[in-house]
Amino acid sequence: MIIHLKSSTSEAEAKVLAEQNKAVLFKDECFVLVTSSKVKEANAALQLAADKIVVTESDIQLAGKPYRADKRTIQVADWSIGGHTQHTVLITGPCSVESEEQIEASAQLCVETGVRVLRAGCYKPRTSPYTFQGLGLNGLLLLDKMRQRFGLRIITEIRDSSHADEVIEYADIVQVGAKAMYDQSVLRKCGKSGKPVLLKRGFGSTLQEFVQAAEFVLSGGNSQVMLCERGIRTFETKTRFTLDLCGAVWLKKHTNLPVIIDPSHAIGFAYGVADLSRASLALGVDGLLIETHPNPAEALSDAEQQLNFDEFRALKNSLSTLATALGRKLI
Amino acid sequence: MIIHLKSSTSEAEAKVLAEQNKAVLFKDECFVLVTSSKVKEANAALQLAADKIVVTESDIQLAGKPYRADKRTIQVADWSIGGHTQHTVLITGPCSVESEEQIEASAQLCVETGVRVLRAGCYKPRTSPYTFQGLGLNGLLLLDKMRQRFGLRIITEIRDSSHADEVIEYADIVQVGAKAMYDQSVLRKCGKSGKPVLLKRGFGSTLQEFVQAAEFVLSGGNSQVMLCERGIRTFETKTRFTLDLCGAVWLKKHTNLPVIIDPSHAIGFAYGVADLSRASLALGVDGLLIETHPNPAEALSDAEQQLNFDEFRALKNSLSTLATALGRKLI
Amino acid sequence: MIIHLKSSTSEAEAKVLAEQNKAVLFKDECFVLVTSSKVKEANAALQLAADKIVVTESDIQLAGKPYRADKRTIQVADWSIGGHTQHTVLITGPCSVESEEQIEASAQLCVETGVRVLRAGCYKPRTSPYTFQGLGLNGLLLLDKMRQRFGLRIITEIRDSSHADEVIEYADIVQVGAKAMYDQSVLRKCGKSGKPVLLKRGFGSTLQEFVQAAEFVLSGGNSQVMLCERGIRTFETKTRFTLDLCGAVWLKKHTNLPVIIDPSHAIGFAYGVADLSRASLALGVDGLLIETHPNPAEALSDAEQQLNFDEFRALKNSLSTLATALGRKLI
Amino acid sequence: MIIHLKSSTSEAEAKVLAEQNKAVLFKDECFVLVTSSKVKEANAALQLAADKIVVTESDIQLAGKPYRADKRTIQVADWSIGGHTQHTVLITGPCSVESEEQIEASAQLCVETGVRVLRAGCYKPRTSPYTFQGLGLNGLLLLDKMRQRFGLRIITEIRDSSHADEVIEYADIVQVGAKAMYDQSVLRKCGKSGKPVLLKRGFGSTLQEFVQAAEFVLSGGNSQVMLCERGIRTFETKTRFTLDLCGAVWLKKHTNLPVIIDPSHAIGFAYGVADLSRASLALGVDGLLIETHPNPAEALSDAEQQLNFDEFRALKNSLSTLATALGRKLI
Repeated sequence: MIIHLKSSTSEAEAKVLAEQNKAVLFKDECFVLVTSSKVKEANAALQLAADKIVVTESDIQLAGKPYRADKRTIQVADWSIGGHTQHTVLITGPCSVESEEQIEASAQLCVETGVRVLRAGCYKPRTSPYTFQGLGLNGLLLLDKMRQRFGLRIITEIRDSSHADEVIEYADIVQVGAKAMYDQSVLRKCGKSGKPVLLKRGFGSTLQEFVQAAEFVLSGGNSQVMLCERGIRTFETKTRFTLDLCGAVWLKKHTNLPVIIDPSHAIGFAYGVADLSRASLALGVDGLLIETHPNPAEALSDAEQQLNFDEFRALKNSLSTLATALGRKLI
Repeated sequence: MIIHLKSSTSEAEAKVLAEQNKAVLFKDECFVLVTSSKVKEANAALQLAADKIVVTESDIQLAGKPYRADKRTIQVADWSIGGHTQHTVLITGPCSVESEEQIEASAQLCVETGVRVLRAGCYKPRTSPYTFQGLGLNGLLLLDKMRQRFGLRIITEIRDSSHADEVIEYADIVQVGAKAMYDQSVLRKCGKSGKPVLLKRGFGSTLQEFVQAAEFVLSGGNSQVMLCERGIRTFETKTRFTLDLCGAVWLKKHTNLPVIIDPSHAIGFAYGVADLSRASLALGVDGLLIETHPNPAEALSDAEQQLNFDEFRALKNSLSTLATALGRKLI
Repeated sequence: MIIHLKSSTSEAEAKVLAEQNKAVLFKDECFVLVTSSKVKEANAALQLAADKIVVTESDIQLAGKPYRADKRTIQVADWSIGGHTQHTVLITGPCSVESEEQIEASAQLCVETGVRVLRAGCYKPRTSPYTFQGLGLNGLLLLDKMRQRFGLRIITEIRDSSHADEVIEYADIVQVGAKAMYDQSVLRKCGKSGKPVLLKRGFGSTLQEFVQAAEFVLSGGNSQVMLCERGIRTFETKTRFTLDLCGAVWLKKHTNLPVIIDPSHAIGFAYGVADLSRASLALGVDGLLIETHPNPAEALSDAEQQLNFDEFRALKNSLSTLATALGRKLI
Repeated sequence: MIIHLKSSTSEAEAKVLAEQNKAVLFKDECFVLVTSSKVKEANAALQLAADKIVVTESDIQLAGKPYRADKRTIQVADWSIGGHTQHTVLITGPCSVESEEQIEASAQLCVETGVRVLRAGCYKPRTSPYTFQGLGLNGLLLLDKMRQRFGLRIITEIRDSSHADEVIEYADIVQVGAKAMYDQSVLRKCGKSGKPVLLKRGFGSTLQEFVQAAEFVLSGGNSQVMLCERGIRTFETKTRFTLDLCGAVWLKKHTNLPVIIDPSHAIGFAYGVADLSRASLALGVDGLLIETHPNPAEALSDAEQQLNFDEFRALKNSLSTLATALGRKLI
């Protein structure tokens, strides 16, 4: 149950109510309490204190359409996605920051093709300790340089909570990786960060769990959350993962959060990225996360799935044509 | 290994070679032998008799790009899909033939919206013996009536081999259902049928097995096979199945068979069918199979996923716009 | 809803009631009607005609504990499993009948180790048309010879309905293969066969669908059905399938049918068969289906997963010890 | 590639070699380097410095049988599991520490039934922010009290790295939860902890990834790692997860780490825990983790799957009988 407290409620009163009702408390335009969804009726004290009460079916509460029918707007610099914008944001860059030369080439590709957000990881969630683990803080500093030099926005990933504060400091959009989707410490830090958050779905996670992970951020007081579908693990092994566009449609239908698609990690092979990007755009998603590399064959991670720059230029052009036909605007 | 025998080879000689090499034999423009893909080198007798020899990596042989790079063309009446046509064929109709009134309404929707192929099942592969099982032969007769009255082409499904001959007789395009994908008796009958075959992927079947099922039809001498992705079974239960568009892209890349998408069975809910249809079209597929019903709420099977007629009309319009932008032609 | 009609009811009356209520009708000790489980209340005519009425939650009806709490007994020759027997039946033999020499060696292993049921396939559900497809009727004739020569019982598999009648004629226990689990034509023939049926779970099939497949047989009037778990398809590829012992426990808890385990197909590698057999026995299953071959390395199918004879002898001994400790009897 | 450096090698020399070869370095009986498994040949410098070199097929290196054929021994207090002990350790207790009264009752059950290790979570990895999250540090203090009062060993779970240090301090065996399996920060802390680690398999994780997660701990210099299979996520929803005993057998065959089974989380229902525990014991596992609660119906988490005390006593007895028949010792 979600309870909007009257604007006259003091913080002290709100805290008492939160504790009495085992509710999470945060401040939006007013104080908001969220109890377990098992609570279906407000007691007298809550009814007295409340401006608005929403009973929810499951613990998809703040993210659900029944609470808020309109899609949330994510504000980044002077532009936004979601809400009524009909924007689809393109995000591109390499899997990992590898060197200044490499990330600068990627930044220049963004500038050339009109892409506003540069992506690259600095803390890589590799499954083996014996492979390249990312440049860490040095990577973040290189991304910061690119932001200043080219006026780009930066999205980069938190792998675990040991470096969450640094990533939150340097990123314009904080990415929570698929393998960290259940990490409450990371999610709670994002909830307090005030920065837009792109939350990736764990590849073994249900849609219910995925949206509930977003609830950790939303109930921390941060309403700037995007959901990113990036492929789930199934029995099929010819492709790296299985892009769940049925799931993306479900998210559009049942939640109020913008939906981003990452086709690169889903299929795991460059040959399929263009087709899947066009399909995702035609589905009406709010953003696309596409891996590119100046020289994919030599990439230190995810070599097979990154587009080279010419492939990306061609894809960008076809997406622009398609967006126009769909009444959407590619930004 | 695929061996094209010289045009001078007699049927008797071809049969001897087939037996000696444990090969499947069929007649296309010439006699063709297909051995296990484990055979990597032709013996002297085969080399002498052959015009062309293709060694294949796996038992995806006749369906594979290495054997035949060009997409196969499926000829139905005076139109075709696949090949170089850039056609995407729309197929619609109810899950099941329920009555003459119902199927006639569906046929009229086809005529009104320019759809050339009417679909409806007569032998339903229900998972319970206690639910509606289809009208059987009476259903086929009703479909035949619609064909004659409205000049439509008919696609309908074989559930198992007990009625395969009837379905092959009455259908213009024979559908092999997902639950019959491994049924060799059905597949072999299709291989001898001379009719276009739409083969649905089993929801628990790998892409490798799916294409190998097509090999049963192709190696029977029938080159008119289309592959239909209709959702696979995964851990996600918010949607009925998970549409595997990564798989569809893989099929486009690695096989020479046209690819059809069935978004209705994949998501299992009408609300998502339009989005998924547009996504599939943007992916460049050769056909779409969309369930519609004059009154979905009263359908005897698959009630939740069938579009009503107004929803289909709106979808058809948006698909036409999209097809133009994509350089494809909706037929 | 399951309705036992009064013993005074004539067949003609039963048929009328079946038609009026869209119910399946069969004869057990009395005439039995089964309607859809959505029917929750019997109308006046049914109430008048009935001796007993059971309302069921889902279309697991005849197979469910609420209808019949006691486990069914399967009678084969002069011995039985299920019921109150505490028997676990061992079944062994090769994947396929390959030659008289091979199947005779297998039959002799049965005799030597006290195994009563010999298994071997004659119609192989291979996923490729270019591999060994089984000996067909010749295989059945060889199995018949073994039965007569060694007094063994024979279990062999129906792949599809084109040869269902032959298999039913020659087998003592009819196996419905995993890929035929949805084949209504096969299931209905089994329902009329009067022979014990071992129904394998499709590797992509839910437990609900699996038990509903058994309902096709049971509602045909054949109460001799065993359920065989043989591994489901998951994301894990180090083993061929994933043996679902949680599912086996669920079947024991919720159905009245004996449960058989096939560890060989589940793991797909000989090294794991002994451990999984012991685990299954400790779970309290009614039977084990274990693949053995006189020379696994040269087997024409499933070479990697078949035990050689010494491995089977050792396994048999350890199972006997274990059975005693568990209070079960290995037969 | 794993390289054991000669005992004469100094730490400084070892560090230089590690850096030159992009290898992980740790100290066991000698300095050990581990490079990527892609390195298949040692250069001259390494060959000169090495006592022993093991080339590995994949990044399952230190955990693999090719490196070390014997199962590792885990030493806890004055007893051990793994190695040649034939021990199966029983671990029990509630899902969460809820109160002193509750955890004391659980501790007394351990004492009464001869169980040496008490389990209970303090930081719960719930999927919703609106449910009970565990007692945190207060829970750890209660567990510490039970250890001192009853002489039990304590196993408790790290949810994320924000509280990893506290858990490592208070636990005798550190549990890394399924949702933290990819958390490198947690794994590296465990690698430096010197305490036995029970690593749970992520429910969406392959066996390859699971064992590679153990490599993060092992390559930190901690050889005391146990692998715990606790169910994977599949399409089947009648049970909470699917216990992967095929996977457990694979781990026994291919790794040198002890294997523990958690049947409670796998099936998610108390009715199946006894059967699955017996099956796991018959499989020859090194330990069982079984949830019990003084009053399961009132548990704050996992209410449906916890055994009550009488159920556990009965299970313990049947496991003892079974262990004897299997030649194993239950401790």
